[in-house]
Amino acid sequence: MEELNKIGSRARQASAQLAHLNTSEKNRILLEVAVLLEDKTEAILDANRADMEQAREMGLKGAIVDRLMLNAGRITSMADGLRAVVQLEDPIGEVEEMKKRPNGLLIGKKRVPLGVVGVIYESRPNVTADVAGLCIKTGNVCVLRGGKEAFHSNNAIVGIFHEAIDKCGMDTGMVQLVQNTTRESAVAMMKLNKYLDILIPRGGAGLIQAVVQNSTVPVIETGVGNCHVYVDEDADLEKAVSIVFNAKTHRPGVCNAAESLLVHRKIADRVLPSIGKSLREGGVEIRGDETTCRLIPEAVPAVEEDWGTEYLDLVISSRVVDSVEAAVDHINRHGTMHSESIVTENYTHAQYFLDRVDAAAVYVNASTRFTDGFEFGYGAEIGISTQKLHARGPMGLRELTTSKYIIYGNGQIRE
Amino acid sequence: MEELNKIGSRARQASAQLAHLNTSEKNRILLEVAVLLEDKTEAILDANRADMEQAREMGLKGAIVDRLMLNAGRITSMADGLRAVVQLEDPIGEVEEMKKRPNGLLIGKKRVPLGVVGVIYESRPNVTADVAGLCIKTGNVCVLRGGKEAFHSNNAIVGIFHEAIDKCGMDTGMVQLVQNTTRESAVAMMKLNKYLDILIPRGGAGLIQAVVQNSTVPVIETGVGNCHVYVDEDADLEKAVSIVFNAKTHRPGVCNAAESLLVHRKIADRVLPSIGKSLREGGVEIRGDETTCRLIPEAVPAVEEDWGTEYLDLVISSRVVDSVEAAVDHINRHGTMHSESIVTENYTHAQYFLDRVDAAAVYVNASTRFTDGFEFGYGAEIGISTQKLHARGPMGLRELTTSKYIIYGNGQIRE
Repeated sequence: MEELNKIGSRARQASAQLAHLNTSEKNRILLEVAVLLEDKTEAILDANRADMEQAREMGLKGAIVDRLMLNAGRITSMADGLRAVVQLEDPIGEVEEMKKRPNGLLIGKKRVPLGVVGVIYESRPNVTADVAGLCIKTGNVCVLRGGKEAFHSNNAIVGIFHEAIDKCGMDTGMVQLVQNTTRESAVAMMKLNKYLDILIPRGGAGLIQAVVQNSTVPVIETGVGNCHVYVDEDADLEKAVSIVFNAKTHRPGVCNAAESLLVHRKIADRVLPSIGKSLREGGVEIRGDETTCRLIPEAVPAVEEDWGTEYLDLVISSRVVDSVEAAVDHINRHGTMHSESIVTENYTHAQYFLDRVDAAAVYVNASTRFTDGFEFGYGAEIGISTQKLHARGPMGLRELTTSKYIIYGNGQIRE
Repeated sequence: MEELNKIGSRARQASAQLAHLNTSEKNRILLEVAVLLEDKTEAILDANRADMEQAREMGLKGAIVDRLMLNAGRITSMADGLRAVVQLEDPIGEVEEMKKRPNGLLIGKKRVPLGVVGVIYESRPNVTADVAGLCIKTGNVCVLRGGKEAFHSNNAIVGIFHEAIDKCGMDTGMVQLVQNTTRESAVAMMKLNKYLDILIPRGGAGLIQAVVQNSTVPVIETGVGNCHVYVDEDADLEKAVSIVFNAKTHRPGVCNAAESLLVHRKIADRVLPSIGKSLREGGVEIRGDETTCRLIPEAVPAVEEDWGTEYLDLVISSRVVDSVEAAVDHINRHGTMHSESIVTENYTHAQYFLDRVDAAAVYVNASTRFTDGFEFGYGAEIGISTQKLHARGPMGLRELTTSKYIIYGNGQIRE
């Protein structure tokens, strides 16, 4: 596809400059963008209004429209987000594990940018600023392919990046937005190995699976979370009720929200009624197995499919199990390796759960909602990896880097 | 493909056991294999003779037949290799960066096995023992798909692994050899996302590209190396001659051998004749640009294609450049991001080269031949990654692992 080849070629060129900027030069760009975002709030809102109008004409639903919508507060948040990234330590250039080998070679691992990062995402225009900011800070050129519903907003935001980059005398090719928002451009990005070092899909399960299945560019799989809370036989009842409620209702539309509840049979009749009551008050629909339905009258019967479903809504599946082993088996069979939590006061069960559950983040006595770059102390997040290669769990600045071995010799040859 | 689905399903099952073995249990298996390999040398050699005979019937060439051939010494080397892996520290279970967050959550990163590792490789039967040993040590099940030319040898070696694993009372499904050696089984492995966590191709450029282009399983690209030695204007002449000679001739058939020589114009007439003489004595054919051909009468003219060619043979391309910048440009354009070396006494040129060359390993005043897990001090190597994700450069035990966040709470919920 011609547009993407042009973008890719410009990206490679810009990468040669961006990868070698000092931290202060990169920070200067980010601060310029932050100022301009706030100065030009009205222009961004105008562009956003055009998107909103189009969305209404297309008959898009409430949640998508809410994600699409910008206001002065959300624009200030974008600017503040960039200022926060300025404060973060720049991982680029650090040399790790430098050591002298017996033959005198001094070998170290230097942290360097990945190069060119492609991101395919959906409606939220703030992703544009977030991703571009994290990429600039780590010396990575980004090629952004947003959704067609956010076309005007994304262009307005990228325009501001270009103005700021230009003001700093740098190559605006470091942030590029794909103008073609058809399926064709997404597919072309998945095959752009010549120019992209990595491709990150951010969005729903459909988008992510399409990228995983079709991309020849290395992908980082993000975000799909069928997360469980398991209430063990030795759970503290109060913690159980509060953690289940928080994990399900705090923000049901995100990937680290709980989608499924497992309860040990021995404690079911003591804890399920209270959990049922609290979830009911939170407006949550419960789809339960037989025992759940007996103990929570409002629950509706679950079908097999429910165990594997990420509702992203005020719905939870619930199943009673006979042991912590059965809980772990269920999770490893039906989960998506995102975030899993056990509520227990039992030391051995806690350790068993931590050991045996195969997921990016495994909790004891805490809500799954904490799986997040900010909550983990990274100050930023480019996404949450649910794969095992390169990065697992919340990805911050460091996950946007790679390493290269640098070797200082004095004439060594191999004997 | 039925065979692979069966293998995959058994692999997942075995993984649940292997991932949780203690180091001493894993080491016991490896030591048993080492003993049995030596005890059953004759049986392995019988199997290998069958492969060799078949190879001759198929009219295979010298290098392939040499890689295929086993003898008592090579079998002892395999056993010693496994004993060396026993001595290495087990990375599994280590918890890194554990820290307490302001809300009291204790968050750490635990090193865990990848799960199931697929490897597609070509003729060398010792890869079977090497890979299986490294995978067992790191708690990873391996699914091995060797070449048809090594079918009998590979089966004999895997049979010995099974005998040892069985003797230790463990699930032999932890090491599996695909019996179908047609192209069909390789393609099926590339789509086996349900069971494989990672796929590593080991072999020639054709195999590697086929896997990169067709696999939906995450791949680690290994091995292709169009490596350069750049002799700077401020090079020490003696070091230059010796490093170029070593990098080209020490073992020309491997990926870290030099394939291309770049020489600064200012030093060309002083250094090229000596390099030409030494390479000629090593039996190396030189394909040069105009200046090279003028200074080395035996050189033949290079064509554009030579700059991108990995000869894996006693052939080297040679080009005269005007600056260190031009050398770096040439390398970043034609190289494969494997191993690159500058020979110079000039501090600024050395630092520039280290900074600007985009490769897994960048050297000053040393032979490219050092890019190797053993030379880097990892004690083992599963391959050399030329990609930027997950691992870059020689991959040892640690590169066969991933992490999972473990989080200890006491009832935390997100506000």
